[in-house]
Amino acid sequence: MLKRTHTCGQLRPDDIGKKIILSGWVHNWRDHGNIYFLDLRDRYGITQLVIDAEKTPDIHKQVQKIRCEWVVAVEGTVRKRGEENPKLPTGSIEILVEKIEVLNEAATPPFELADAGKISEELRLKYRYLDLRRPQMQSRLETRHRITKIARDYYNELGFWEIETPMLAKSTPEGARDFLVPCRLFKNTFYALPQSPQLFKQILMMSGTDKYFQIVRCFRDEDPRADRQAEFTQIDVEASFVDTNDIISIHEKLIAKFWKEILDIEIPLPIRRMGYKEAVDNYGIDRPDLRFDMKLKDVSDIAKNSTFKVFKTVIEKGGVVRGICCPSRLGGPGGSQILTRNYIEKDLTAFVADYGAKGIVWLKVSDEGGKLSCTGSVAKFFDAAQLEQIAKRFDAKNGDTLLFIADTLKNANKALAPLRCRLGKDVKLYGEGRFEFVWITDFPLFEWNEEENRCDSTHHPFTAPIEADLAKLDTDPLSITSQAYDIVVNGSEIGGGSIRIHRPEIQQKIFDLLKITRQQAQDRFGFFLRALDYGTPPHGGIALGLDRMIMILTGTDNIRDVIAFPKTQKGQCLMTEAPSSVDQKQLDELNLMLKPEK
Amino acid sequence: MLKRTHTCGQLRPDDIGKKIILSGWVHNWRDHGNIYFLDLRDRYGITQLVIDAEKTPDIHKQVQKIRCEWVVAVEGTVRKRGEENPKLPTGSIEILVEKIEVLNEAATPPFELADAGKISEELRLKYRYLDLRRPQMQSRLETRHRITKIARDYYNELGFWEIETPMLAKSTPEGARDFLVPCRLFKNTFYALPQSPQLFKQILMMSGTDKYFQIVRCFRDEDPRADRQAEFTQIDVEASFVDTNDIISIHEKLIAKFWKEILDIEIPLPIRRMGYKEAVDNYGIDRPDLRFDMKLKDVSDIAKNSTFKVFKTVIEKGGVVRGICCPSRLGGPGGSQILTRNYIEKDLTAFVADYGAKGIVWLKVSDEGGKLSCTGSVAKFFDAAQLEQIAKRFDAKNGDTLLFIADTLKNANKALAPLRCRLGKDVKLYGEGRFEFVWITDFPLFEWNEEENRCDSTHHPFTAPIEADLAKLDTDPLSITSQAYDIVVNGSEIGGGSIRIHRPEIQQKIFDLLKITRQQAQDRFGFFLRALDYGTPPHGGIALGLDRMIMILTGTDNIRDVIAFPKTQKGQCLMTEAPSSVDQKQLDELNLMLKPEK
Repeated sequence: MLKRTHTCGQLRPDDIGKKIILSGWVHNWRDHGNIYFLDLRDRYGITQLVIDAEKTPDIHKQVQKIRCEWVVAVEGTVRKRGEENPKLPTGSIEILVEKIEVLNEAATPPFELADAGKISEELRLKYRYLDLRRPQMQSRLETRHRITKIARDYYNELGFWEIETPMLAKSTPEGARDFLVPCRLFKNTFYALPQSPQLFKQILMMSGTDKYFQIVRCFRDEDPRADRQAEFTQIDVEASFVDTNDIISIHEKLIAKFWKEILDIEIPLPIRRMGYKEAVDNYGIDRPDLRFDMKLKDVSDIAKNSTFKVFKTVIEKGGVVRGICCPSRLGGPGGSQILTRNYIEKDLTAFVADYGAKGIVWLKVSDEGGKLSCTGSVAKFFDAAQLEQIAKRFDAKNGDTLLFIADTLKNANKALAPLRCRLGKDVKLYGEGRFEFVWITDFPLFEWNEEENRCDSTHHPFTAPIEADLAKLDTDPLSITSQAYDIVVNGSEIGGGSIRIHRPEIQQKIFDLLKITRQQAQDRFGFFLRALDYGTPPHGGIALGLDRMIMILTGTDNIRDVIAFPKTQKGQCLMTEAPSSVDQKQLDELNLMLKPEK
Repeated sequence: MLKRTHTCGQLRPDDIGKKIILSGWVHNWRDHGNIYFLDLRDRYGITQLVIDAEKTPDIHKQVQKIRCEWVVAVEGTVRKRGEENPKLPTGSIEILVEKIEVLNEAATPPFELADAGKISEELRLKYRYLDLRRPQMQSRLETRHRITKIARDYYNELGFWEIETPMLAKSTPEGARDFLVPCRLFKNTFYALPQSPQLFKQILMMSGTDKYFQIVRCFRDEDPRADRQAEFTQIDVEASFVDTNDIISIHEKLIAKFWKEILDIEIPLPIRRMGYKEAVDNYGIDRPDLRFDMKLKDVSDIAKNSTFKVFKTVIEKGGVVRGICCPSRLGGPGGSQILTRNYIEKDLTAFVADYGAKGIVWLKVSDEGGKLSCTGSVAKFFDAAQLEQIAKRFDAKNGDTLLFIADTLKNANKALAPLRCRLGKDVKLYGEGRFEFVWITDFPLFEWNEEENRCDSTHHPFTAPIEADLAKLDTDPLSITSQAYDIVVNGSEIGGGSIRIHRPEIQQKIFDLLKITRQQAQDRFGFFLRALDYGTPPHGGIALGLDRMIMILTGTDNIRDVIAFPKTQKGQCLMTEAPSSVDQKQLDELNLMLKPEK
């Protein structure tokens, strides 16, 4: 076997005259009669090979039968390329081939690599090994490798130890569904794959490990969603004797490092912080996209005095009228009209319907000689002063469009928040390649669960309340602020964490408020509650979603693009055809039966 | 909360006079009347705290109720310690405490941390968070972190990318049993947890990834064995366009790096190589402990001419008489007698019985004025020339003991190899802290499976034969040498790999020889066989057993000592009580039933 001396991305004019060996895949060929060109590709790049019929007639004959994606090794001499290709780093040179060895043939691929962007994702996933040969996919794999390397170097430098926690863990059903693993040696018992190493990392703090991290696979058996995978990876961190500022400070520096090293973008530190309440009031959501302003405004006080029945009814029932103000034209006054009646009443109305909103009410702002007003089919229900007041509330300019949703506060926000993001994108309110980070803090510790008539943890039941609110556990739990924090970029939450409860009696109170009975708490978390008793240090941590972060860093909306062997939304691997049926013998050993068909 | 300014392992005489804050666990206390000493411990070390009743009467009163393993923070001033403690890096200083804050109390631990070496492992595992607080256990966690960091830095430097392969994979039953994961969305189908990423890493080579590694959890549902865990971690590597020497060279440098950085021991490179045949001939096993010589010798040719019936019968049936020669005294001629009749006929005979040997025949070597002979109960069956010949074959010296086992070659080796290791240890034929590495190469590609009347892969079915032996696939498969290699240290295999088959037609031939039908091959490996068709580069790799390597580097025989949260031999986590029963609802969702009791 000819052994390569260089890679296909390596040779430069300095190497001209050298005798070298390359190996790789045939990316392309061009037959110019006596001269035959082959582009040879490997992970590192593409190099042009030249076979000259006059100099090497045998090789010229041999290459005629070589096809795309065959694996070959060639020996030859580097020479200056006649017509340079400025798109390739190797574009100034080519190899005059003196020897060629076919290392392996290849069946005709079911799609051309260059066309992979256009073909169905099913086919790409089935032939993942072909799809992954594309430079763009290789580059994503490399970015993923680099991100984890940067993270590990960083934590190591700070004295964090990477510690592996079990994959075969205990099922503690709450939140998402566990994947179960039947145990053969103890009949009728099961392990669960971890939804996160939360309890283990807290126990590591109780073990005195002080600073832990792990880049770790987690599992959630959730119903299909486009941007989720049943197995996903998180950067998981915990430290002792720390407060919120410590975790935030450590991690904003890490995030800045990611953006600097991968995209060469400087993120100004510290990253701004925003309280949960401010975020929800202004953006309708706890992960605001801050690349553009367009804050939500409440006009209930004006709307309730109008004669518009839809608004009045909602407000009388305790609801709100909230809205946003959007320029009607792409790129401002001179741009092309985009917020047409059709766009609003068809596209946007259908869009918000997906989020449960019944409709959009809209007004167009006019500014006649400094006098603001609004027009539109519902304008007639308001008097001039009210219309001016509305326009002013939004700081609206001539030609802007105001869009309203009337509903409960929660429902109005649920529709307005994505509507705002959609408009920001459609009206191009921000440039490409812009990243706006924000830490969301001061979350409420609990949310009220109407159905179950109890508190639910906003994050998880191990999140600590702020010290000042401890007394409210007995009196007013819903008003308690937690020591939780989320990191958000461009409207995506890429991580979150909290300072944890370290006192057993407070942990027990939280379980009580969540209406987890003492017996249930013992069954699920008994070991954890016991561990809390033996000298638990104050501690806190965070988890960053690796997959989502790499999506943002590589500019893809498809989570499957950043995972080497992803599964479909429904959890199938189209390449290996997992999951699959198994032998009866395997089930017998596990003492399991499939339920008979009804 | 008082926030630490230093750790408990950090302060030195240079810091005397500084005002500092420490946090940690109360390791010990001593009440000397007006002076009260507390040893404060964290991951980094132990620092002595002093509370002086005259200076701080309130604190002196407060500390009386503080107990071991309470978590406290103290503020105070560093001062010179009266009586230095040379055992502690902080032993020259102490802290005069001016403020103390109890961060958390602790229930009385079920065992004293200092006694953990003596208590039952069950208790240690149940209270793992206490066990892990011991400096020795923390140090093992740190070594594990450092090893993986060294490996990642090394591979990164060489251009290997760490790529995550799926945990929810396809069941391909062969070799060990798979752990299954029932799939909820597709009824009656299952994922399997990977026994290794073998097929995925080969597919990554087909994907053009060129150089892959991963430090990855693997799963085998095997029957209980002391030194195995159902989930274990391997350093998994694959590269394209490489040969055996490339993989060996890369990995012996890495191993040398581990030993240098963790133990400060230089391993001379290159590591010696030994053919499989030589290893088995001389040491009875393919993972020889080379810290001492004591080669196995065959004396069948002499024994068959003796009058000893046991030997003669075995040889007539095609068996062998093989033995080893051992000094009878600890440390040689001057040492104390160890190979007593009792030791041989009780201890060693019971020992080899565990490996299936029916008994040991032994002779004592005498050297009378240059004339070698042997004595012992079976000596009478041999004439003087035969006895001399036997002694000479072993290069035996006066006082040595020869131990023989007569059985089939395979069985004799099976007992003699561990017997040799036991004797090497008992007779102290090597010093502590010695490491002898060897690469075992030139394995046979197949072993004969008598029961199934077919070939079995010595390693796995993706191992390539050497090129020169390809033709023998059709004629004499059992004589084929593979391109596999194992790395062995002190008799433990810590890794192994091979150059893989990259040609589909050869892979198919191997499956045929293993009597895997075309249908079975399609069902299990169809995706892999298909992938092989589309331009597979020559490739090879290795997997290193991380757990076992860390055991050797940290000097423990117990695999559970190097895993933060290990399971018992039977796969239970005594801390969390996994595996456990699950709700019927969870099983219903998976369409599963437990088999009814008979």
